[in-house]
Amino acid sequence: MVRLTLAQQLTASLVEQIGNGTYRVGDRLPSLRECMRLFGHSKNTVINAYEALASQGLVEPRHGQGFFVRQGSPNHSEPDEPQPYARAMDTIWLMRQQFVREPGHSPLGEGFPPVEWLMDMRLDKFTRQIMRTEVNTLFRYGNRLGNASLRQHLAQKLASYSITASPRQIVTTHGANHALDLIIRRFIAHGDTVLVEDPGYYPLFGKLQLQGAHMLCVPRLADGPDMQVLEQHLRNHKPKLFFIQSVGHNPTGSDISPGKAHRLVQLAQQHNFILVDDDALADFKPASAIKVSALDQLQRSLYVGSFSKSVSAALRVGFIAGSKDVIDELGDLKMLLHTSSSELCERTMDVILTEGHFLRHLIRLQERLQAATAAGLAMLDEIGAEVFCRPQQSLYLWARFAHIDDAKDLTRQLQPKGFMIAPGHIFSPEQSRTNPWTRLNVAYLNDPLLKAVFKG
Amino acid sequence: MVRLTLAQQLTASLVEQIGNGTYRVGDRLPSLRECMRLFGHSKNTVINAYEALASQGLVEPRHGQGFFVRQGSPNHSEPDEPQPYARAMDTIWLMRQQFVREPGHSPLGEGFPPVEWLMDMRLDKFTRQIMRTEVNTLFRYGNRLGNASLRQHLAQKLASYSITASPRQIVTTHGANHALDLIIRRFIAHGDTVLVEDPGYYPLFGKLQLQGAHMLCVPRLADGPDMQVLEQHLRNHKPKLFFIQSVGHNPTGSDISPGKAHRLVQLAQQHNFILVDDDALADFKPASAIKVSALDQLQRSLYVGSFSKSVSAALRVGFIAGSKDVIDELGDLKMLLHTSSSELCERTMDVILTEGHFLRHLIRLQERLQAATAAGLAMLDEIGAEVFCRPQQSLYLWARFAHIDDAKDLTRQLQPKGFMIAPGHIFSPEQSRTNPWTRLNVAYLNDPLLKAVFKG
Repeated sequence: MVRLTLAQQLTASLVEQIGNGTYRVGDRLPSLRECMRLFGHSKNTVINAYEALASQGLVEPRHGQGFFVRQGSPNHSEPDEPQPYARAMDTIWLMRQQFVREPGHSPLGEGFPPVEWLMDMRLDKFTRQIMRTEVNTLFRYGNRLGNASLRQHLAQKLASYSITASPRQIVTTHGANHALDLIIRRFIAHGDTVLVEDPGYYPLFGKLQLQGAHMLCVPRLADGPDMQVLEQHLRNHKPKLFFIQSVGHNPTGSDISPGKAHRLVQLAQQHNFILVDDDALADFKPASAIKVSALDQLQRSLYVGSFSKSVSAALRVGFIAGSKDVIDELGDLKMLLHTSSSELCERTMDVILTEGHFLRHLIRLQERLQAATAAGLAMLDEIGAEVFCRPQQSLYLWARFAHIDDAKDLTRQLQPKGFMIAPGHIFSPEQSRTNPWTRLNVAYLNDPLLKAVFKG
Repeated sequence: MVRLTLAQQLTASLVEQIGNGTYRVGDRLPSLRECMRLFGHSKNTVINAYEALASQGLVEPRHGQGFFVRQGSPNHSEPDEPQPYARAMDTIWLMRQQFVREPGHSPLGEGFPPVEWLMDMRLDKFTRQIMRTEVNTLFRYGNRLGNASLRQHLAQKLASYSITASPRQIVTTHGANHALDLIIRRFIAHGDTVLVEDPGYYPLFGKLQLQGAHMLCVPRLADGPDMQVLEQHLRNHKPKLFFIQSVGHNPTGSDISPGKAHRLVQLAQQHNFILVDDDALADFKPASAIKVSALDQLQRSLYVGSFSKSVSAALRVGFIAGSKDVIDELGDLKMLLHTSSSELCERTMDVILTEGHFLRHLIRLQERLQAATAAGLAMLDEIGAEVFCRPQQSLYLWARFAHIDDAKDLTRQLQPKGFMIAPGHIFSPEQSRTNPWTRLNVAYLNDPLLKAVFKG
């Protein structure tokens, strides 16, 4: 066996890295000094290796800048999602669909508003304000409960919903899903019973399954949970929590009625369970909409909020509000599990809330949503679809189409025509049950091509 | 009972909100239009309420800008940490200390480098580059595995450690703790046995306890784990994972020897357990330092990395590298639990790696660290302390002082003198055991006041 010199070893290693895509065309190789100081190579080893690569045509020196990978170097990199449609149409499938967009496909089943609805909030406008105060705190972990100024402004947001909470009663999270995860891990042990809405927010079901919770389904009606089924469950079981969406329910777009909200708070007191009010779509609804957490004033309820869908999902800023003791525990748990949330993102969000004309942005967003909801309902009426409820403004509509008994069939029919829809079975903890309903994003519903598919 | 008008109700509610700190001095109340459109108040209600507040002296109108809370308004807000030292000196206590700095106290026990060491990386310099490409992706969730360009550059970073991993073998996380949490939740069920180093990374122990894992302790020696104890454990138990820090071990600052690293990889194959190589301090050590994950090439090992301590903890950017199948599962789990990591933070980190002269920053950081380590060791020698090992460059030193049998006593003695140290028992899964050692941050060690305390 021929023994390679150090320079030959380094050359061979770099040839492999250029070949497998670790270094791509245009990338700069580390400088001579960096290789010596950080990687422990000698000067000659690096010079010989880089010259060998250059003579093989893989890299080129640029005067005073270093060595760069050349155009035309072989490169075999792999796609992140090898078979986007090969996976079963389960929770993971739909979640992945939120991340991958097929070019030219209409994302009817998506849970996200069009980016054009959000872009009037230009994220790059705020850098100066973000960096203005105490730049050195931007290197550290920040406050365990989250940025203090942001929590102050979240308290104001809650006050606009008639929920009184001091900043001390708020802990920030990496979005609403992180918030739900912390709540689940604080309150639920393996085998514990919880109540969920059916249909309901499907990533919640996955988290509960992972924690080994026993889910009892409460049917969601157009005015809130089915109280008869709920009371029956309460006679037979001792659930610890009830996960509910008072307003802008995902997937149905329905809002709870005042009477049901009131009764729910009474039942939570009587039967000693916690109401988790997931309000991730609050910014799409009037502030005056009834919420169980507002009736209860966070005594036996936890409020979950998010800016992912009304400002930016790339910030990952959400929060939980509750009683001071529970928030204290959730703050410690957040710290133990994930150290802290991002001070950079939270300060960005805080500047948006204070100097970014956030409320003006919400007015525009809701005006667009109202128009899209009205147009979407009219379109569904025209093609003879049945709608579950008719909200004035909702990102989602829940509908079923004539002659469709299983929305999975519809998903398969529409996919080659360029429409991605979210079949109803995904939104039920009992995913194996046949379900004729689909969740539709109103932003993409008023589409002549879609109408043609249903009418033709 | 007198029935209040709507304007009186709104006034009373705002008086309360100003009183309890929801609105603070200088805050702007929502505009008339915002109150009408978002909160559903009538024009007259808002005007009457705001004028009542103004006549009470609580707010003042500013021409064309709206109503602002006035100087001198009563305000009773609560501190976030009512009794910073009242809590037991446990894991949570030390974690909280990382977040709260007592003014004037020396944070000797802190796990973080001084901000001055990081500030040559100015985070605000990069906004233009971050926003330059595809601004609309900054509103969405991003890739489930994390920003693709960042993963590309992480693959280059790993290659500099002789670890070959394609970008497809990397999933980004909200820092190293989020990475450990995902690994624990993927691989460990209640009652499963795992191996940990003692002393070791204490937030890991808390996460393992929460998941119900059974921890077997392997003593950490100056050249790596105690192999005799390890082999004994392996004869009697079937551990699923071994959490180890090859390099820059927290709290001892020690590095593994090549022989032990090699034997460890052999044992992992023979006994079918996974090595989790937590390398959160990689940027503080030469790239050539031996790592078990490099010997094993991610066959039976997972690599955990972070930029929290070398760039900024406010970004929350870390990552896991492993085999493609495991990374795929961890990517799905991350999506299910927390949707995605922050595209904004990851793009910021990516720009720093490509255009921020990151390697030049590391050279400066390591030069500072070398000087501080040498000075810290000299100081400890001078006061007659015993050190566990003498690394050339390490953020932490592990030391015991003359006449100290329990470092908790030392913590109590030093605290009123203005020094916060990290007592050794915290770094052991058996926290009740008396422990004479302390973890010291070299950046704060060479302090004449501290020397005076020990010599006087």
